[in-house]
Amino acid sequence: MSLSGIAAEGRVLAAPISADAVLSAERFGARAVCLQRLIRLGLPVPCSVAIGFAAVHRIADGGPLDMAALLAPFGPLPLVSVRPSSGAADWGGPRTILDVGMNDAVRNALARDLGPEAAQARYLNFIRAYAADVARLDPDTIEAPFDAVDPVAVALTAYERATDAPFPQDPAEQLAQVLKSMARAWEGVSARLLRQAQGAPADAGLGLVVQEMATGLGHGESGTGVIRSLDPVTGAAGAVGEYRRQATFGEARRSGAMMPLDGEAGPTLRGEAPALHAELVEMAALCRQKLRDEMEIRFAIADGKLWVIDAIPARRSARAAVAAAVRLAEEGIISKQEAVLRVDPGALPELLHRRVDPAAKRDVILKGIGASPGGATGRLTFSARAALAAEAHEIPCILIRRETTPEDIRGMQAARAIVTERGGMTSHAAVIARGLGLPCIAGASGLRVSTRNKTMTIGGRVFREGDIITVDGTTGEAMAGAIAMQEPSLDGPFATLLDWADGFRDIGVRANADTPAGAAVAHRFAAEGIGLCRTEHMFFEPSRLAVMREMIFTDSPTDRAAALEQLLPMQRQDFMELFRIMAGHPVCIRLFDPPLHEFLPTDREGLTALAESLDLPLSDVIRRVDSITEFNPMLGLRGVRLGVTQPEIYEMQVRAIFEATVEASRIAGAAVVPEIMIPLVSAKREVELIKTRIDGVAAAVRNASGQEFRYRLCVLVETPRAALRAGEIAVHADILSFGTNDLTQMTYGLSRDDAGRFMSSYVSSGVFPEDPFHTLDKEGVGELLMMGASRGRKARPDIILAVCGEHAGNVDTIDFVRKAGFTYVSCSPYRVPVARLAAAHLALRDRLEAVETQDAASA
Amino acid sequence: MSLSGIAAEGRVLAAPISADAVLSAERFGARAVCLQRLIRLGLPVPCSVAIGFAAVHRIADGGPLDMAALLAPFGPLPLVSVRPSSGAADWGGPRTILDVGMNDAVRNALARDLGPEAAQARYLNFIRAYAADVARLDPDTIEAPFDAVDPVAVALTAYERATDAPFPQDPAEQLAQVLKSMARAWEGVSARLLRQAQGAPADAGLGLVVQEMATGLGHGESGTGVIRSLDPVTGAAGAVGEYRRQATFGEARRSGAMMPLDGEAGPTLRGEAPALHAELVEMAALCRQKLRDEMEIRFAIADGKLWVIDAIPARRSARAAVAAAVRLAEEGIISKQEAVLRVDPGALPELLHRRVDPAAKRDVILKGIGASPGGATGRLTFSARAALAAEAHEIPCILIRRETTPEDIRGMQAARAIVTERGGMTSHAAVIARGLGLPCIAGASGLRVSTRNKTMTIGGRVFREGDIITVDGTTGEAMAGAIAMQEPSLDGPFATLLDWADGFRDIGVRANADTPAGAAVAHRFAAEGIGLCRTEHMFFEPSRLAVMREMIFTDSPTDRAAALEQLLPMQRQDFMELFRIMAGHPVCIRLFDPPLHEFLPTDREGLTALAESLDLPLSDVIRRVDSITEFNPMLGLRGVRLGVTQPEIYEMQVRAIFEATVEASRIAGAAVVPEIMIPLVSAKREVELIKTRIDGVAAAVRNASGQEFRYRLCVLVETPRAALRAGEIAVHADILSFGTNDLTQMTYGLSRDDAGRFMSSYVSSGVFPEDPFHTLDKEGVGELLMMGASRGRKARPDIILAVCGEHAGNVDTIDFVRKAGFTYVSCSPYRVPVARLAAAHLALRDRLEAVETQDAASA
Repeated sequence: MSLSGIAAEGRVLAAPISADAVLSAERFGARAVCLQRLIRLGLPVPCSVAIGFAAVHRIADGGPLDMAALLAPFGPLPLVSVRPSSGAADWGGPRTILDVGMNDAVRNALARDLGPEAAQARYLNFIRAYAADVARLDPDTIEAPFDAVDPVAVALTAYERATDAPFPQDPAEQLAQVLKSMARAWEGVSARLLRQAQGAPADAGLGLVVQEMATGLGHGESGTGVIRSLDPVTGAAGAVGEYRRQATFGEARRSGAMMPLDGEAGPTLRGEAPALHAELVEMAALCRQKLRDEMEIRFAIADGKLWVIDAIPARRSARAAVAAAVRLAEEGIISKQEAVLRVDPGALPELLHRRVDPAAKRDVILKGIGASPGGATGRLTFSARAALAAEAHEIPCILIRRETTPEDIRGMQAARAIVTERGGMTSHAAVIARGLGLPCIAGASGLRVSTRNKTMTIGGRVFREGDIITVDGTTGEAMAGAIAMQEPSLDGPFATLLDWADGFRDIGVRANADTPAGAAVAHRFAAEGIGLCRTEHMFFEPSRLAVMREMIFTDSPTDRAAALEQLLPMQRQDFMELFRIMAGHPVCIRLFDPPLHEFLPTDREGLTALAESLDLPLSDVIRRVDSITEFNPMLGLRGVRLGVTQPEIYEMQVRAIFEATVEASRIAGAAVVPEIMIPLVSAKREVELIKTRIDGVAAAVRNASGQEFRYRLCVLVETPRAALRAGEIAVHADILSFGTNDLTQMTYGLSRDDAGRFMSSYVSSGVFPEDPFHTLDKEGVGELLMMGASRGRKARPDIILAVCGEHAGNVDTIDFVRKAGFTYVSCSPYRVPVARLAAAHLALRDRLEAVETQDAASA
Repeated sequence: MSLSGIAAEGRVLAAPISADAVLSAERFGARAVCLQRLIRLGLPVPCSVAIGFAAVHRIADGGPLDMAALLAPFGPLPLVSVRPSSGAADWGGPRTILDVGMNDAVRNALARDLGPEAAQARYLNFIRAYAADVARLDPDTIEAPFDAVDPVAVALTAYERATDAPFPQDPAEQLAQVLKSMARAWEGVSARLLRQAQGAPADAGLGLVVQEMATGLGHGESGTGVIRSLDPVTGAAGAVGEYRRQATFGEARRSGAMMPLDGEAGPTLRGEAPALHAELVEMAALCRQKLRDEMEIRFAIADGKLWVIDAIPARRSARAAVAAAVRLAEEGIISKQEAVLRVDPGALPELLHRRVDPAAKRDVILKGIGASPGGATGRLTFSARAALAAEAHEIPCILIRRETTPEDIRGMQAARAIVTERGGMTSHAAVIARGLGLPCIAGASGLRVSTRNKTMTIGGRVFREGDIITVDGTTGEAMAGAIAMQEPSLDGPFATLLDWADGFRDIGVRANADTPAGAAVAHRFAAEGIGLCRTEHMFFEPSRLAVMREMIFTDSPTDRAAALEQLLPMQRQDFMELFRIMAGHPVCIRLFDPPLHEFLPTDREGLTALAESLDLPLSDVIRRVDSITEFNPMLGLRGVRLGVTQPEIYEMQVRAIFEATVEASRIAGAAVVPEIMIPLVSAKREVELIKTRIDGVAAAVRNASGQEFRYRLCVLVETPRAALRAGEIAVHADILSFGTNDLTQMTYGLSRDDAGRFMSSYVSSGVFPEDPFHTLDKEGVGELLMMGASRGRKARPDIILAVCGEHAGNVDTIDFVRKAGFTYVSCSPYRVPVARLAAAHLALRDRLEAVETQDAASA
């Protein structure tokens, strides 16, 4: 084989890896390129040949490749490994196969050198790997009896019997078959789906690296090991790793026990071979410096000589990734910009879970598989419907199911945690819970769930609907009652990285937070304000609920106002608290949104109690409840429609907001500027009417307090018509905030609560490419967003454009709206760090693209 | 007063009406112009002066006008009438005031000529009119005692006492006050609202005509009367009318008894004064010929001389209007085009009601006010909700209420007729029923409605929910049981006029018809096909309902298909019948649309019965019903979503359609081309999927039958997303039919069923300018329509564009969509004639405008 390798049709298909070979990751894969960089650093890499994507593709198609030429660099008795070299480490790839070239002759040679045991063990392993991966035989076929005298002979016979052909002795034939099997495995459907799930493009190629075996066996110090420049869990700096030193029995050598590279107790590489250890540590530091990343280096020592087999970016937890990126930047090895780009925003959520306080006392009631980490406390519910009802009333709940089905998805979203009697790490419940970032225990053995009786029984203890439990999805334990939680903290590197990210991004990030607790999380995660504060939950506390019901049963506006007057001080306190926590950041308060019937009981018991408390005949109560029940509550008398037709609720809320504004401004010594959001608008006149009333209340509060204040009016654009008419609506609003949840429901004519029954089948059969409630539908809903934004801006160039709702924290949504010049996104508090990082990525990528375009233009 | 009249600021304010005066309807009103035309025809019109809009406006504002100059043409003792002359006869106006100028001197002169009785009667009448209309006194104030010796003196004293001023004797002062009162009455709020309701513009002006009194008293043949050139009810041609001949008692003259102009029995004008009658008839014929309309002419005969006081287009019923327009055109007096434009489409519905067969035997159970005409049979319901439920199951129902409120509107729309215990012709129920074209009986005395018990009691008879009654809104009677109906028929002139209209219009008109009966009406009204045939009702017949329920309770596709197999022959028969009735016109069949839970019982009794019939435990049935109940059924698993996820229903329907197509084509000896409509589409893939399955069924039916056939695929665009994505959807569809009902609901995020609770308050307070479910929202929903149409056409230039739903029969909707080049509208069968005529009006108006624009350009 010539230096320039095997070529066809003008393209290099395969080439020995040398300092001056022309290799690129796009054609030969990351591993080949990394090996070349190690060689350029002068590190001792065994002879390696890189096979490019084109060659592998040709092999998969049954095309010929000159095996003799490929093997030429490896001498007369070649013994090589074949490793995948795809575009990125986490795109997977076929298993590495070792000791290709092993045959009777090599065995004999090895046996002479290192003893028959070592030779036999390696031959047997190779036969097994070859049989499984190349000949696709069942592993049992090749297994020799425990007490076989010559297990290799048994295996070879078994192989021949199973395949009707002798085990190939020709290294060229072995290599050709190995390459073909690896090439084909890469093109299989499941391999493709798996790597696409990791972000690989549909046409991602596979390269292969053929490398002379460094067996780690020999006569002097020998063994194999791994050294990493960081702790993969914590991300702490250091040279850590393991060394498997060969075991010698007289002349016979074989793999021995594992030892750490360094440490206090027991044997270590450093203790056994301090010079080699020093050489290794120096090499690792060099790699880290020059390859500009924390690396994981596979090495071999043979007869006291160090070989570098391979180096890949060290695998690391999300926490470690953040720590490593920040450290590399702080050491000047990479730029801050690169550090920010090194951390995948999708990896952050696992750092943001609440955890059950490890120090708290636990009354463990069940134990299952910790299928999705984090902790949550809530009331037991036994159906998706019950979970939704609980959510509507802002009651935290835990969903308990025998197992979950796609129909449960909305209920799972509504729950704080999920526990299933059946299933494991890949059950429906586990997969969905991880996707939703919810704690989940699957396969809770010994648990008996009765959906009908709404009970769960475990170890003789019976728990009923409404009982409070705490779930620890990290340990897989559930405890009776509420247990102290630890809020996720932004540790030093995390905070530093996001701080850098904030310097790059060009779209604001706010949080949706309804309660002081939510606001506190938002503030801790450095949200630039609250973009959506839903006020409904404030009316579900028992004392307030009674007032609400009283109000619903009054007929005159005066009586309604009188009933609501009782809620005014409580609401004022709610808002004061939010203003205090957000410390000067804007708070956008959505006025009352749900239909009034949500505040009324539906069961006989509740109705009777209500009749008693209101001192009304039961029949009157039932009639009233019937009269305000709706066919399609989503499309009924709620939001601004309630605000227009029963003005007293909004007037009370607005007064509470303004009185809180005056008081909070006084306490803070600086002006608080509240934002007031009007929900469910479909016509400009609705906005005009409410604005006039708000101005009236503002004037009254200014008069009474003698204090000036400003406010910003926000219209929640969540009906298609509001998006279409955004131009005339924007004239009256300071902010247009697009509520993509409802907008998606109305644009599709599809209720999220009812879509669960068919959404998974719709998505799996490709009717919808994605669930539009998870991934923003850019073609339909997105067009309305863009139309609304451009019409709003045309009518009022200084309009603030925002998007709130569950889509807002997704990278693709942020990408979509920042290109349209939106001012901010508002997402769940725990999503804020993700959004901050993702927004920085998008801005940096745009910057890089611009530079590339400029380079291309000037080239 | 000069010949050119009274002028100010260069404008003529008032002028004597002569052949060469410059008068226009826009400045002096229709009456003044009509009088001038009578003068030009040489007819004997008493001396008349026209006062223009500007002058009246000035008078209303208190501006001066020279009364002496106005009265100059009427001699030294003027005695005149003042009549309103507005832009159109039906815009109303203040009452005519007669005998202005009457005072002691005129009385004396009259008494000398015609006797004191006549003079006293006229004076008294004038004082009363002046007191009421000018001085705004209560009529009782002026009433003289029955036996007063000089009732005029009593009246004058009473007037003076009430007003602190003597009754004016100066004719100029009288006239000034009369003109001012009439001018101000015109500008009052209620007058303005009333005329705007008749189509007058907001700034419509009032003119006045002052005319010398022709009293119809004298020494020879004298009297007053009216002659019309048509029968106002039937529209039959002829010279009909009445004549009130003066009664003479020696020298005394006064108004006498009424007689017809001509006839067999009793005295007639023709009998009494044949020459005058002949002159009158000739005059009426001349008027009709020259004024190009059927006229109503007020005349007076004084001393044997004929005077024409006034002529207006004869008032006529809708039926008469149609007959007159057709006759005038057939006689060549007006063009066909003008005939079509002469009939207001809005007047047609009253011709299109079904009527209770007058010959049928009636078991009358109640009698009230016939508040809205027409007949209907249905089952009793006692709440709007029950009426809606009945509608959902296609059960005709009669809504019985104590009285109706705005919350009942949807229920009223769902009912076939309305009966209320209270109220009259202007009650809520009456007004709405007339608007909806529904029969209505209001104020049914003796009726006792119990909403709670769901009964109505009358004359000791008790009727319960579900009992069948028949309502005759024309007579105000309700009968027990079903009674034979007469379908409205298109009589000769009606059919002729619509035939002419069809020649002018440029947009198609189809009907929405679900049943053979509906299709028969559609065909009778010459609908060009069925644009929307909903198939749900076909599944609610008891035998079919049982199969549907069986299907809902099966779990495997095979079992579902087997259950549906039983429905196939029935569906095939349904479609055969529709194809037969529509005789070659297209029939667009919407595939199954409602959510399946509509087919399940909700009450305990029904659930138990269902469990028995299915031989399942009740708990299983309840669980199943619960599991498919939806939060927002409008936005749930229905339409194409059912079609995609449970393909068996659509496959059965499509097979039935194609088998019926084959059979119907064979019987008719001509190819039937069915149209298949897919409801609730939101993504193109849904259309692709269903189309593929339809094609599969088509191939199977072609194979089995050995017969070729074609079909057209129609997508119902009723989600905002379907409108936005119409381009890619159109690629697969032959027809895009916009369902404006659902599209309005989703664009506004507003369920029509739930909007009733606040819509009337929203509209009355101007938040929405109109109820968008009645009047198409052109700004929002309309924009989606236009976007969908243009994107669809761009993707597929030969696409057929249609609009169906309740808006489709409205003139403003037709206007909107024909401008966008839509192919057809599809509305309720009874609305088809209205739509045909309205479409012709729109096309003709465009043509006239084009001519005017051309004229203006060439001028």
